[in-house]
Amino acid sequence: MTLSFGVAYYPEHWLHLPDPRAARAAEINLMRAASFNVARLGEFAWSLLEPAPGQFDFGWLHDSIDELAQAGIQTVLGTPSAAPPAWLVQQHPGILAVDEAGRRVQFGNRCHYCVNAPEFHSAVQRLVGALAREFGQHPNVIGWQIDNEYNRYCYCERCQQLFQQFLAQRYGSLDQLNLHWATPYWSQTYQDWAQIPLPIGPHNPGLMLEHRRFVTHSYRRFQKLQIDLLRPQIHPAAWITHNFMFWHDGYDHYDLSADLDLASWDWYVGSGHLDYQASGAAHDLVRGYKRRSFWLMETQPGNVNWRKVNNVLNRGETRAAIWHAIAHGAQAALFWQWRSALGGQEQYHGTLIDQAGRPRPFFSEAQDIGRDFAALGGVLDGAELRPQVAILNSYDSRWSIQAQRHHNNFDYVSHLLHYYKPLAARNISVDIVSPDAPLEQYQLVIVPAQVILSPAQAAALEAFVLGGGHLVLTIRTGMKDGYNALLPQRQPGLLTRAAGVEVEEYYALEQSAPLQGVPQLGGTESRSTLWAERLAPLPGCDVQILARFCASNGWLDGRPAVTRHAYGRGQVTYVGVYLESLADQQVLVDDIVACSGVQPDLAAPENIEARRLVQPGGGSLYILINHNRFPAVVPLPWKAANLLCGQPAAGELSLEPYGVAVLQPV
Amino acid sequence: MTLSFGVAYYPEHWLHLPDPRAARAAEINLMRAASFNVARLGEFAWSLLEPAPGQFDFGWLHDSIDELAQAGIQTVLGTPSAAPPAWLVQQHPGILAVDEAGRRVQFGNRCHYCVNAPEFHSAVQRLVGALAREFGQHPNVIGWQIDNEYNRYCYCERCQQLFQQFLAQRYGSLDQLNLHWATPYWSQTYQDWAQIPLPIGPHNPGLMLEHRRFVTHSYRRFQKLQIDLLRPQIHPAAWITHNFMFWHDGYDHYDLSADLDLASWDWYVGSGHLDYQASGAAHDLVRGYKRRSFWLMETQPGNVNWRKVNNVLNRGETRAAIWHAIAHGAQAALFWQWRSALGGQEQYHGTLIDQAGRPRPFFSEAQDIGRDFAALGGVLDGAELRPQVAILNSYDSRWSIQAQRHHNNFDYVSHLLHYYKPLAARNISVDIVSPDAPLEQYQLVIVPAQVILSPAQAAALEAFVLGGGHLVLTIRTGMKDGYNALLPQRQPGLLTRAAGVEVEEYYALEQSAPLQGVPQLGGTESRSTLWAERLAPLPGCDVQILARFCASNGWLDGRPAVTRHAYGRGQVTYVGVYLESLADQQVLVDDIVACSGVQPDLAAPENIEARRLVQPGGGSLYILINHNRFPAVVPLPWKAANLLCGQPAAGELSLEPYGVAVLQPV
Amino acid sequence: MTLSFGVAYYPEHWLHLPDPRAARAAEINLMRAASFNVARLGEFAWSLLEPAPGQFDFGWLHDSIDELAQAGIQTVLGTPSAAPPAWLVQQHPGILAVDEAGRRVQFGNRCHYCVNAPEFHSAVQRLVGALAREFGQHPNVIGWQIDNEYNRYCYCERCQQLFQQFLAQRYGSLDQLNLHWATPYWSQTYQDWAQIPLPIGPHNPGLMLEHRRFVTHSYRRFQKLQIDLLRPQIHPAAWITHNFMFWHDGYDHYDLSADLDLASWDWYVGSGHLDYQASGAAHDLVRGYKRRSFWLMETQPGNVNWRKVNNVLNRGETRAAIWHAIAHGAQAALFWQWRSALGGQEQYHGTLIDQAGRPRPFFSEAQDIGRDFAALGGVLDGAELRPQVAILNSYDSRWSIQAQRHHNNFDYVSHLLHYYKPLAARNISVDIVSPDAPLEQYQLVIVPAQVILSPAQAAALEAFVLGGGHLVLTIRTGMKDGYNALLPQRQPGLLTRAAGVEVEEYYALEQSAPLQGVPQLGGTESRSTLWAERLAPLPGCDVQILARFCASNGWLDGRPAVTRHAYGRGQVTYVGVYLESLADQQVLVDDIVACSGVQPDLAAPENIEARRLVQPGGGSLYILINHNRFPAVVPLPWKAANLLCGQPAAGELSLEPYGVAVLQPV
Repeated sequence: MTLSFGVAYYPEHWLHLPDPRAARAAEINLMRAASFNVARLGEFAWSLLEPAPGQFDFGWLHDSIDELAQAGIQTVLGTPSAAPPAWLVQQHPGILAVDEAGRRVQFGNRCHYCVNAPEFHSAVQRLVGALAREFGQHPNVIGWQIDNEYNRYCYCERCQQLFQQFLAQRYGSLDQLNLHWATPYWSQTYQDWAQIPLPIGPHNPGLMLEHRRFVTHSYRRFQKLQIDLLRPQIHPAAWITHNFMFWHDGYDHYDLSADLDLASWDWYVGSGHLDYQASGAAHDLVRGYKRRSFWLMETQPGNVNWRKVNNVLNRGETRAAIWHAIAHGAQAALFWQWRSALGGQEQYHGTLIDQAGRPRPFFSEAQDIGRDFAALGGVLDGAELRPQVAILNSYDSRWSIQAQRHHNNFDYVSHLLHYYKPLAARNISVDIVSPDAPLEQYQLVIVPAQVILSPAQAAALEAFVLGGGHLVLTIRTGMKDGYNALLPQRQPGLLTRAAGVEVEEYYALEQSAPLQGVPQLGGTESRSTLWAERLAPLPGCDVQILARFCASNGWLDGRPAVTRHAYGRGQVTYVGVYLESLADQQVLVDDIVACSGVQPDLAAPENIEARRLVQPGGGSLYILINHNRFPAVVPLPWKAANLLCGQPAAGELSLEPYGVAVLQPV
Repeated sequence: MTLSFGVAYYPEHWLHLPDPRAARAAEINLMRAASFNVARLGEFAWSLLEPAPGQFDFGWLHDSIDELAQAGIQTVLGTPSAAPPAWLVQQHPGILAVDEAGRRVQFGNRCHYCVNAPEFHSAVQRLVGALAREFGQHPNVIGWQIDNEYNRYCYCERCQQLFQQFLAQRYGSLDQLNLHWATPYWSQTYQDWAQIPLPIGPHNPGLMLEHRRFVTHSYRRFQKLQIDLLRPQIHPAAWITHNFMFWHDGYDHYDLSADLDLASWDWYVGSGHLDYQASGAAHDLVRGYKRRSFWLMETQPGNVNWRKVNNVLNRGETRAAIWHAIAHGAQAALFWQWRSALGGQEQYHGTLIDQAGRPRPFFSEAQDIGRDFAALGGVLDGAELRPQVAILNSYDSRWSIQAQRHHNNFDYVSHLLHYYKPLAARNISVDIVSPDAPLEQYQLVIVPAQVILSPAQAAALEAFVLGGGHLVLTIRTGMKDGYNALLPQRQPGLLTRAAGVEVEEYYALEQSAPLQGVPQLGGTESRSTLWAERLAPLPGCDVQILARFCASNGWLDGRPAVTRHAYGRGQVTYVGVYLESLADQQVLVDDIVACSGVQPDLAAPENIEARRLVQPGGGSLYILINHNRFPAVVPLPWKAANLLCGQPAAGELSLEPYGVAVLQPV
Repeated sequence: MTLSFGVAYYPEHWLHLPDPRAARAAEINLMRAASFNVARLGEFAWSLLEPAPGQFDFGWLHDSIDELAQAGIQTVLGTPSAAPPAWLVQQHPGILAVDEAGRRVQFGNRCHYCVNAPEFHSAVQRLVGALAREFGQHPNVIGWQIDNEYNRYCYCERCQQLFQQFLAQRYGSLDQLNLHWATPYWSQTYQDWAQIPLPIGPHNPGLMLEHRRFVTHSYRRFQKLQIDLLRPQIHPAAWITHNFMFWHDGYDHYDLSADLDLASWDWYVGSGHLDYQASGAAHDLVRGYKRRSFWLMETQPGNVNWRKVNNVLNRGETRAAIWHAIAHGAQAALFWQWRSALGGQEQYHGTLIDQAGRPRPFFSEAQDIGRDFAALGGVLDGAELRPQVAILNSYDSRWSIQAQRHHNNFDYVSHLLHYYKPLAARNISVDIVSPDAPLEQYQLVIVPAQVILSPAQAAALEAFVLGGGHLVLTIRTGMKDGYNALLPQRQPGLLTRAAGVEVEEYYALEQSAPLQGVPQLGGTESRSTLWAERLAPLPGCDVQILARFCASNGWLDGRPAVTRHAYGRGQVTYVGVYLESLADQQVLVDDIVACSGVQPDLAAPENIEARRLVQPGGGSLYILINHNRFPAVVPLPWKAANLLCGQPAAGELSLEPYGVAVLQPV
């Protein structure tokens, strides 16, 4: 399998033309001119595929798939459940979700459904079943995408009842629920499951956390319902996926990915420009869902239409972005969308060809990328990243912190990225994984603000350290149990013994606190922002103090701020600060990296991204990307072939602005 | 007819006094002291005029009108439909409008009605019919104002059904509607008119545009219902108007003005101070509703009460503002209001006399203006502006852009003013008119961001150019059809051939793009903000490139940005940029003006406004206003008489701060 | 009675432990270690005290009170009506309040009740009656707190009907209501009480004011219902209070305090740090509710959890804050709360001991304060402030201005503090009292922005001046009557004769207006911000012009801005400006103080607070607090004993950062 490259294609927008087949032929010719080999179809086509209950019209879709196939373009089919048609919601208005204000959402946008509506489930099953029968064995339908970007919370009475049932199943008894939620607080004791509300606004932390889990459960059930229809009817090589969104926090993505074959996501830079040291983390996040390569199911051809300022990416920047995605494990990239419909909500979104059917300026850049992929052949087939570093990403912890930030500017993801970026700047590959993922293959594991830490997770981390790993625990970690309740002990809770320190007190900071550290940790000029923790080494523990607080609020003055503790064959660094400057954070992370023995993929000048992928046979490939708008030169430690241009590279490599190279050492 | 000058007068606020007639007598004496000759009455008096269903009490209103008449003060009667009384909404709660959140609005403010409620229509007809019978033939009732400042959208089920009926009538079939709205997009296909919602928040562009038209239709129907009652019963000289609001965008003002005799509006500076180069456009806008002189039905006596900061206009500034309105075609000016009621929502609004009935300091400025008007006699009777420049104002385009700004800071009116202000700075008179207005009388027509351009409009513009006119097309023009759907061709759509260029791509800019132009267009320092269009001359067209983009996002670099094309006997300037600095825009507009041969009314120093009005007999009158807070001297090209002071003026004219002169060349 | 010191204690959070009694014993030992002598209990414990309708479980509360008593810790019992349990709202959903959007609030937070719900009243009566029977005679239950921080407005239909009944009783007839609300304005005339709405958003000023009074009436009725159950059953020494919130404006605190024995409040600095010159006013406000000493019922142990940034107070700052409260009349201070529950909405709030039961760092500061109090013995018993200055605080006026600010930045409380702070900076004690409070004991009375001024209040102020007092009237004062209607005369209304000036016009300022005053009033550099009034001395009045406006908006130029008028044996200073700089305001207030003959408690360097308290026997005690984070030296005019450390003090006193001294002159 070569890299997949293509577009989201909606031939149903053009069925009104006098000769839609001719129109498609012209379009498919242009797709070939861009070297596309895949298209996603069908995603929102419910009202055309099933214009009346049970009456299916698959002709245009069949034709389109076949015509694409003849041009060497494979199809991913989207199930159109994100767009229940007017006749369905008219028949069953209860299908429309209810918003936080208690109103049914309107028909006419998308994802207007209540994910738990039984009449909706039935209708989806009827349509998806028919689609599976019709296209499941089509050799050119290589994959299926379930729905589109799950994103809505519903507050209808049915959802409330299902939430109550979900809780009943989870807790067994109200006594257990009252215990774990500490309901004596503010007289919240429940004596009847029916008393429990869906949370609107701030509420009991236990209830809020369970609500997120209930939403996850609801989407997973809804997704499973479609998977169960597809799996028996599609051919064995076809995979099933869902196109997730960025750092969306509406549900646990690990849980939803469990039933999928392949992870995919929709990557939109939106406003502004590529920040590769941050966006790399989003790719790594998605790669972590199934812990293997993923699809970039949608990405912008130039610009989007839904941000405040919908600027275009610079000429060349999209190519760099696509290669950046591949360097982080993408095996496909599809632009959204091919051509704008004449109407509809996204008339201003970037496309490859305009409404007249003529290539837009951006089309030329797609052609450049197509040429790249063609030049490579199958050399990247099965090539994989081999990170030695893992960063744990906990949805439970993120939800917990979001609902109780304590400092308004404390953002879970930004804090995680504060550790990711210095690693990215050094071209150190990272896995971002669930706190339940296996850790054996890593030398360094970073646990950022994991406020909720289960005994099993703590045990795995402790075993990792005992076995020789370097563990980094950061502020807020280990404070709560799986019910979002405080542990009856101080942070870092079950990892206190491994850390060799406990947190005597945590402080939200209204002004940053000065630090005094060993010189390599920034000298006396460093400051902690937003948060600070007063650490106390455990009696009898030989704890190295890497930094201390200087005079601050009186409570922190002179106290340990960053510590390191040898434990078993490994070490634990506890970081009780949120370093204000990224430069200081670089120093801290560099120190941790040095201590852990982790090596970069390739040393390169500033803003030159370099990633090593390992081929199935063990050979290395290096993807290099110049993210600068000026030329750059990269010293090379080995001789290599630049597979994109077919030239040899040795000594140093010159890269144009936004230039890319794929190097195979020789 | 001399200039009308007066106030909004609410004698019904004082009927509780022991001797209301004596109170009115004292007030009317003060009105005379200010040289008032008109008052508007009755506007919100429903609960007093009809204290119970069908029981009318017109006595106090009769008396007031008669007493005013005896003092030489004429009456404009407002129909009080904007204030349906408590007994009516109690009887028919369905009269109350429903807001976007689905709630009935409360009784107790104003305009709380659903414009389509039949019970409301009946009640309005009963009252307005009675008023017409009672006062229609009164010689001193010179005009009628329908309702007050239409402003509300209703989201009740009845409105939804009427919207569906409106669409059925407009489209004939759902097939047509589905076609023009491109409903295959997101499965929006409608199979039943009853499925179509009233849009709340973003929705299908076609539906959103039609909703605005439906609101226009609803208000026009409601207005017509009152006009049809009045017209047969009022004396022939009496006119009918409605007091519109500023740049309000709730409905199409051209459509609503069609059934009126006279355009009028309520001008409030609100916070801050007069910006005459912008406010002139608002006057010109209203003059364009009927393409003749208008009334300033309300204006602030010093300050308002409904802004965040309700500062007073400076001493003298109001007089300058009133003269500014007259210089733009106002033939009347009424202060709102005469005297504050003791209670009610607007206790802090400026008035002429205070609650004790004593003149407030501002009263003296009203007296100054009264003296001005008295000095003029009838010299301004029938005098009119004679602009050679038209700017087209399209409500369709404004609505379309507002709902899809693409760049958050792109504001339709601000963009229009970006062309208006440089003209105002040069004292060049402008008509702001509907895109359907005749264009023969103009030498220069500017079409700012007219995204929706009908074939008839395009044809008229093309004919204008062929006939020798200078046409300016700006960014976003000619992109869509009358259904808010993309045209199946590039901008400027049907005017591409005339323009000699097409738009290869448009870009929302996150940072402004540098330009390189001929020196008179700002040299190399100019920048385009918010928006840029990459222009391509049509093959074989001899197009003059007035400016090009410098290095920017890679897509624009080196491409044409502003072009000029000779076409027929005229020329088309296409402006693919939004110049960041007003100084650059002045250079561009000056160049266009020079090219078009248009002349200013009178050259004058900075912030001195000068407008020429042409008397019915052909004579010219010049109104000069010093908008500075310091004295100024204006060189005069001719000898003249200053009609305000009776002095001759020759060589140069001295103007005090906020000073005004009306000059008649001799 | 010595100073009371303690915590809010919720033993019900720990009943799930294997041995709750042992847990309490450990906790009570720690309370003793902090020298606590009082705890508040029971406040939110409804669901535990009455787990099912009419089934009471008082055992754990009895035990806790007894165990505390054995440790010398007295109990304040909170009635738990702020937390109606799930079973109650399930049984009677109408108990849940309805918000402005028309939705029932959710169960699960607190104060979710409609204060007027009869089923709620019954349930509260049953529980509070049982509590009174059970604990009313317990010698260690020294006081009762009704509910918790009343704070909600309900918009249910029942409340609307009660509002209509409230109005009917107040006005007698709709004619009177229509008259006083000036309902002819906008056709608001009411012909049926049932037509009157609860105001949502801006509405008729009369209606809006009455609605606030109705809310006050509703809470007072609800509170009285509990008091009437408690009073007959509790022992004579036990008092009844409610814990009010800061400058909360939801109801008239004077009215609600009338039925209470003792005023108390919950003081949270929240974000940032102590600003003693502002917070002193809040203490003085609460002292003014009953015009005697009060309780600090809650205050933060370090930090809160409900602000955007929940920083901790600096080490030592809390001790300074507690002493600051005592210096303003507090006779008790209780930290909220003792220990965090494991769950619930306030897990991150500061506590004395952590969830593990171990003292947090802050505990040491509580011990410091405990030592202070122990050192004093009963020396402060009955000691009271003796202010010579009163500032009037009118809820009617505050509500009126809030709803009609005219200048968005005009805030009633900030304006009041603009007079308070310069007095605080000079260590001049102030009473903040109702406009109906007696004034005989004062030399200086300041009436800030009292827009609503009743005839009786005006008469009392006039008598105060005639008797030799110095009266300060500020902007906006005396404009309206008790119905929020304009007086039919100019400001300051009924006090015009005493002031010797009237306000010709008031102006909201979009830019500040320059002033020219006598040198001691700031020379020519002063400016008035937000507001300015053009004053005119009454004919024949000998009025001293303290300041005039310089050139400004044309209307103010050269007009009097601040005046002083000798009247009877006293004087009236009318301040028609809002001085922009606090330094200028200090000059103005210093001048007023000098003119009035008022003396400071003690002269002290900057940011050193010094207050004199007078013992029952007439002896003086001085509390001195260094609010700086650096040491300070205070010159002393007498020799004294420092009661906190037992050392003599003479000549000068050294104070550490945040240092405190209690001096008894010898």
